[in-house]
Amino acid sequence: MDRKALDKLLPFVLKRNNVAYYEDGIVYIGDRRKYPFEKVFLRCNDVEDVARAIEDMVTQGGGPYVAAAFAMVMAAKKVEGKPVNEIFDYLRKAKIRLTNTRPTNTAMAQRLDDMLKIAETAGKEGQSIEEKLLDWIRETDDKIYTDYEYRARLGASLVNDGDGILTMCFAETAFILAMAFAMQDGKKIQVFTPETRPYLQGARLTAPSLHELDIPVQIITDNMPAYVMSQGKIQKYFTAADLITLDGHVCNKIGTFQNAIAAHHHGIPYFVFMWGADHKSPDRASIEIENRDPAEIRACRGIPTTIDEIDAYYPAFDITPPYMVSGVITVHGILSPYDLKRHFTKA
Amino acid sequence: MDRKALDKLLPFVLKRNNVAYYEDGIVYIGDRRKYPFEKVFLRCNDVEDVARAIEDMVTQGGGPYVAAAFAMVMAAKKVEGKPVNEIFDYLRKAKIRLTNTRPTNTAMAQRLDDMLKIAETAGKEGQSIEEKLLDWIRETDDKIYTDYEYRARLGASLVNDGDGILTMCFAETAFILAMAFAMQDGKKIQVFTPETRPYLQGARLTAPSLHELDIPVQIITDNMPAYVMSQGKIQKYFTAADLITLDGHVCNKIGTFQNAIAAHHHGIPYFVFMWGADHKSPDRASIEIENRDPAEIRACRGIPTTIDEIDAYYPAFDITPPYMVSGVITVHGILSPYDLKRHFTKA
Repeated sequence: MDRKALDKLLPFVLKRNNVAYYEDGIVYIGDRRKYPFEKVFLRCNDVEDVARAIEDMVTQGGGPYVAAAFAMVMAAKKVEGKPVNEIFDYLRKAKIRLTNTRPTNTAMAQRLDDMLKIAETAGKEGQSIEEKLLDWIRETDDKIYTDYEYRARLGASLVNDGDGILTMCFAETAFILAMAFAMQDGKKIQVFTPETRPYLQGARLTAPSLHELDIPVQIITDNMPAYVMSQGKIQKYFTAADLITLDGHVCNKIGTFQNAIAAHHHGIPYFVFMWGADHKSPDRASIEIENRDPAEIRACRGIPTTIDEIDAYYPAFDITPPYMVSGVITVHGILSPYDLKRHFTKA
Repeated sequence: MDRKALDKLLPFVLKRNNVAYYEDGIVYIGDRRKYPFEKVFLRCNDVEDVARAIEDMVTQGGGPYVAAAFAMVMAAKKVEGKPVNEIFDYLRKAKIRLTNTRPTNTAMAQRLDDMLKIAETAGKEGQSIEEKLLDWIRETDDKIYTDYEYRARLGASLVNDGDGILTMCFAETAFILAMAFAMQDGKKIQVFTPETRPYLQGARLTAPSLHELDIPVQIITDNMPAYVMSQGKIQKYFTAADLITLDGHVCNKIGTFQNAIAAHHHGIPYFVFMWGADHKSPDRASIEIENRDPAEIRACRGIPTTIDEIDAYYPAFDITPPYMVSGVITVHGILSPYDLKRHFTKA
């Protein structure tokens, strides 16, 4: 399926230009903080604007990479015509600033490294860095969506007619497409989406996206998955992952691990979509968990949930050990979490 | 410790008159929906007002019983001087209306039955039903608080110096007192309180109550307990229970079961405070789980968390099986969940 045909299948927030786009030196990011209540874009005039937008959760999941990639193009545009050393220095700083916005998002870090290399080659050869980076983004995007489709087909193959499906946070394109393909294949499904506090990605992104595609979905609060499982309403658990270590530990949005324990307890298999491997993350100890501002735990959509004096704790991600993972859905197939090293270690 | 001395130890929401009180035919209920942002009381002029207040979550936990007991007094006051049959008929209807507000709250149902008997005896003997019921409430209150103190001392005895404690929802007087006694005994503790969506009892009631007593507490979201456990920060898990069946199944606020699975997984003991036994609830199958309005899942403190078209599911309670319960803290001591029948079956 080509990129345009896939784009038609996707819900609003996941369509190509709704994630982020670049126009005449400006980056526009689809504001996922405001979706589904408003469909608006945040205008970013420089790399710092984009970095802050990512830090402020304007976009998340696969979004930060797209926004950051266009920020690199914007950076190249800003220093066009300057001496090559100055350009590279500027781009390197831009990359560091953008990478630092999400220490756990190693996919983004890796791709921005690739962009830096493209830029250096283009610069040395006297080509337009802006154009070369935009070409690279388009090619990479095509590759990413070919991979999404492949993994989504694998995901759909794991779904049986009548299945109840649990997910967590916003597992984005691979998951949403997998559910769409399962429905196209004539399977009846019911998705349960925990709201995913504190940012409500489940309530605000996953549920409206599935609903837009006419996929039956019910929101639950984050304390409900185990009970819904105990009622026999869930047969599969699917999530994305911010990163999966080469020894099979899954780092994803806080709550993923708690649901995995409950799934394991109820004999429900857990499948995770893997974007690729991060060679700086061989094992659990190599994962840096981001602690976010505790004030975010004391509020919901800007409304206080308690009084300011109360202390709070906000680890943004958690880690699920490989023995709780039934299958890792990759471009190499549905792998055992114990076999990732063989498939993802560069020859 | 007498009732007044205990009252001084308790935080605002749990002090005797702050739960609910009766004055000249009117019931005033401490409005826990507004706490800790406002400290206000809802004025109830008749039984229907009280019933609706309970349904609308103005009070919860032990609160509905106190409000309902005063509603029975109010009902008696309303029909004072009427023919005895008319009085009894009115009180019976009041009891049914009040009991129906919370199908899982069997403690309340049982006590309102007792009040009906007191009223009938007083009525037949020509005594003031209002006075007799108020006397009964005072005596019952003294007994309830003696029991709270006893169970809180048992709870405190289970806490070790340096323990991290997880709780869920608002485990009220027994739990709050247990933590206070543990601190008085010189034990350093750190409580973690899941916010308890959708009504945020953890964030709004438990955390401010502990904070008021200078007990260290951190709020987390409901998707975090397992991760906090995996960090080694939690040594004990304590909750209250809406009801515990005679075969040891714990019915409590949704999320209690999910935390219990995570605790079991991490080898953390789970202790539950038991108010007493409900002989209409011998086993799991006898528990009726209340499904509340799905619209409540789509909002947080009145602010929408998603769009109205999205379907939601709201089971308000869950059930934890006895093999996950390390001890049931009762007036008969810390019991095995498998030994309740022997202690609580009437001779």
